Amino acid sequence: MEVKGYVEGQTIFEVGETADGLFIISSGEVGIYFPGNRSVSKPDIILKETQIFGEMGVIDSQLRMATIRAHTNVNLLFVSKEDFDKKLSEADIVIRGVIAILSDRLRQLQKK
Amino acid sequence: MEVKGYVEGQTIFEVGETADGLFIISSGEVGIYFPGNRSVSKPDIILKETQIFGEMGVIDSQLRMATIRAHTNVNLLFVSKEDFDKKLSEADIVIRGVIAILSDRLRQLQKK
Repeated sequence: MEVKGYVEGQTIFEVGETADGLFIISSGEVGIYFPGNRSVSKPDIILKETQIFGEMGVIDSQLRMATIRAHTNVNLLFVSKEDFDKKLSEADIVIRGVIAILSDRLRQLQKK
Repeated sequence: MEVKGYVEGQTIFEVGETADGLFIISSGEVGIYFPGNRSVSKPDIILKETQIFGEMGVIDSQLRMATIRAHTNVNLLFVSKEDFDKKLSEADIVIRGVIAILSDRLRQLQKK
């Protein structure tokens, strides 16, 4: 895990990029901008401390589905795809199965 | 974990029941019947070997959202809510966070 700091307004990742890891918010707020949103400061969703984003990319190797910008100055914990895969491979088989089934169902619902 | 056997047509659990655990299919097929389905042998979805069901009940303590019947004779591995909670408490914090976020998003999408 690695700490990454961003200043207000800075882009953390953009829709369509390759996913290299997930983020846990350590302090501050980030804004999620879905593809239809042309604004640069009015996000669709605001996430706060302890919330996670970017997880679908590491589970599924999907491209980023939204753009994320720092809504305030933020500190994030970055978990690379490699680190995540290692944690997952060390997890109990039932836990791995549950993550697989949840992400499958989520993907199916998002397609609808 | 415990092995449980069911014969074709037997009910494994019914919609609205309290969830006491999740199931992994070891052999055979099970049928998922959503609440609108009045049939007893034409499921909405068929699950096969290695697939998991009943996981939302153990993650969220939700009541069962569908009825499940054995579509053929089946052998299931049953993981009780207590066993699952123990596995989860032993899992890495990132893995726990990812399960929490996936189940949150799934619940939000299912409400829509």
